[in-house]
Amino acid sequence: MKKHNFSAGPCILPRTAIENAAAAVLDLNGIGLSLIEISHRTKDFESVIDEATSLLKELLNVPDTHKILWLGGGASMQFCMVPFNFMEKKAGYINTGVWAKKAQKEAKLFGEVVEVASSEDKNNTYIPKGYTVPTDLDYLHITTNNTIFGTEYHTDIDCPVPLIADMSSDILSRPVDVSKYALIYGGAQKNMGPAGVTFVIVREDMLGKVSRQIPTMLDYRTHIKDGSMFNTPPVFPIFVVRETLKWLKSIGGVPAIQKINQQKADALYAEIERNSCFASPVNPEDRSLMNVPFVYSEKCKDVEPTAFLDFAKERGMVGLKGHRLVGGFRASIYNALPLESVQALIACMQEFEKSL
Amino acid sequence: MKKHNFSAGPCILPRTAIENAAAAVLDLNGIGLSLIEISHRTKDFESVIDEATSLLKELLNVPDTHKILWLGGGASMQFCMVPFNFMEKKAGYINTGVWAKKAQKEAKLFGEVVEVASSEDKNNTYIPKGYTVPTDLDYLHITTNNTIFGTEYHTDIDCPVPLIADMSSDILSRPVDVSKYALIYGGAQKNMGPAGVTFVIVREDMLGKVSRQIPTMLDYRTHIKDGSMFNTPPVFPIFVVRETLKWLKSIGGVPAIQKINQQKADALYAEIERNSCFASPVNPEDRSLMNVPFVYSEKCKDVEPTAFLDFAKERGMVGLKGHRLVGGFRASIYNALPLESVQALIACMQEFEKSL
Repeated sequence: MKKHNFSAGPCILPRTAIENAAAAVLDLNGIGLSLIEISHRTKDFESVIDEATSLLKELLNVPDTHKILWLGGGASMQFCMVPFNFMEKKAGYINTGVWAKKAQKEAKLFGEVVEVASSEDKNNTYIPKGYTVPTDLDYLHITTNNTIFGTEYHTDIDCPVPLIADMSSDILSRPVDVSKYALIYGGAQKNMGPAGVTFVIVREDMLGKVSRQIPTMLDYRTHIKDGSMFNTPPVFPIFVVRETLKWLKSIGGVPAIQKINQQKADALYAEIERNSCFASPVNPEDRSLMNVPFVYSEKCKDVEPTAFLDFAKERGMVGLKGHRLVGGFRASIYNALPLESVQALIACMQEFEKSL
Repeated sequence: MKKHNFSAGPCILPRTAIENAAAAVLDLNGIGLSLIEISHRTKDFESVIDEATSLLKELLNVPDTHKILWLGGGASMQFCMVPFNFMEKKAGYINTGVWAKKAQKEAKLFGEVVEVASSEDKNNTYIPKGYTVPTDLDYLHITTNNTIFGTEYHTDIDCPVPLIADMSSDILSRPVDVSKYALIYGGAQKNMGPAGVTFVIVREDMLGKVSRQIPTMLDYRTHIKDGSMFNTPPVFPIFVVRETLKWLKSIGGVPAIQKINQQKADALYAEIERNSCFASPVNPEDRSLMNVPFVYSEKCKDVEPTAFLDFAKERGMVGLKGHRLVGGFRASIYNALPLESVQALIACMQEFEKSL
């Protein structure tokens, strides 16, 4: 039975990326060696990392002012790298949930942190609006998509100070005006590739302005200078990123996937609204196009959560369990998830409704 | 033609590890999903990381006082994590070459660094001996194998202060008395697996003794507490580590591979001594069993370096170019390199000698 993979991350990847990765592990480009047993300083790998970089630059229209880096350590490492490199005295954070809060916590080790806005009062079910950003901040940090609560910024906000965004879970899902950001970062393991590599897009002229000494590996300038090859990079994850970006380009790039993402999300949210068994806990205008949490409706509040999960599992759906902070269910419908899987989930929700 | 892979790292891995990794990328355990598209919180992955940990514990006889961690960022990230976690005032470093020096440089950001001994006077061609370790150091840092210059500690040294070792390029090549170390770390991409994951073996009761605040991701206690799953770990590299450790166990573990490594190194060094075209720049008693640099002898000093490299390449040997700091040639003969490849190299060196 075909699996419909709604995992929140690591998550579904394009099948061509998976197949090309498996083939390269056995033999890269017919050179008689595996991708994972060659030096990262060979032409065979350098062409991989260079193409990953140029594809990302092309797909996101990254201006020449910004550099693209491939690092290890995950987005969580960026939570400290950002203040290490950008915070002199005071930084602002918008608290839209768990990950935004973790980023904020880390910054407190480096100086004064202003929580410019928060959606904590309503369990992070909305994106804050109508706040004022103090103009004396070194930067403002936002988390553009909240993987757990299913909220998302749908536009690039205007900001009077350098804007830094964790885009781990919605990068490449819609066009982004990169020029509005001082830095964009994220773990690759949603729309960009597998776990084990972190992308950073940083405006180079904003670096080198803090007075502290930065450990070499935590200084973005180290990795700019050596093209992400200061030390051995995560070779296999970067290969899969390249394959994923090639796939995205082949289907028409970010504008094309945005249309499909909108179509998938519209269909799923419409079903959640229509279906008498389910409800969305999220403020309609802030609903994420990537992560769709839903809960039982009032009518079904006494049904065991496992009832729907088991029902869906029998129909080949995996990864639908909601995060413990929200409960219920969560369908992550990232770029590589086909419309067909959303349609299968909708059919499953309809069947479930009839079965009760 | 079969390739003989003498790459210094990333390097040759056991063929079973490569084949099992490729199969898991296509479909893990027959679950209908790829290894790289499932959540790291699933049983399917948790069993992988747990087995990698228990295999390493078994293969190296890691005592219960020590915890095993799997991190991102590479050994270079450990260069700052070590002083972050262990240095209060003063630390000692032994300078045996490039990597040891990089580690030392990083520590200078955190306090006073004492270079306890150095082999820089002779281009790092030996391992320093006969020095005295000051007893007021927070720790002493050594690099057990010098990948570039081809020197290696062949025993676990006695040390009056906590001993910390970068074992990136000789971990698992010989039995180690882990109880003598406060911390052992290294990039996996030599004897343990592919690029993208770093192992740390740390004595837990030595943590939490510094007065500084440590960023969450740089604090070993974070990763101990969450079993290396504080954030998404590098899934694929950890899978390949498990497969590599399974292979090592299957052939008899560390004592068995040590014998083979000794046999390979003895044969190769004997040929370098015998062959009138080549010479070893390294002090005989400190020669590495992992990385064997060699240069043209006085007799052949006017022969182009590419002459031997091309000659070897035609016979299927790759990765033999010496590091620019040493010149000449370097054969890395890590655990997974079969004796047969060393024999092929020796035959090639003999043919080359006759051809001149």
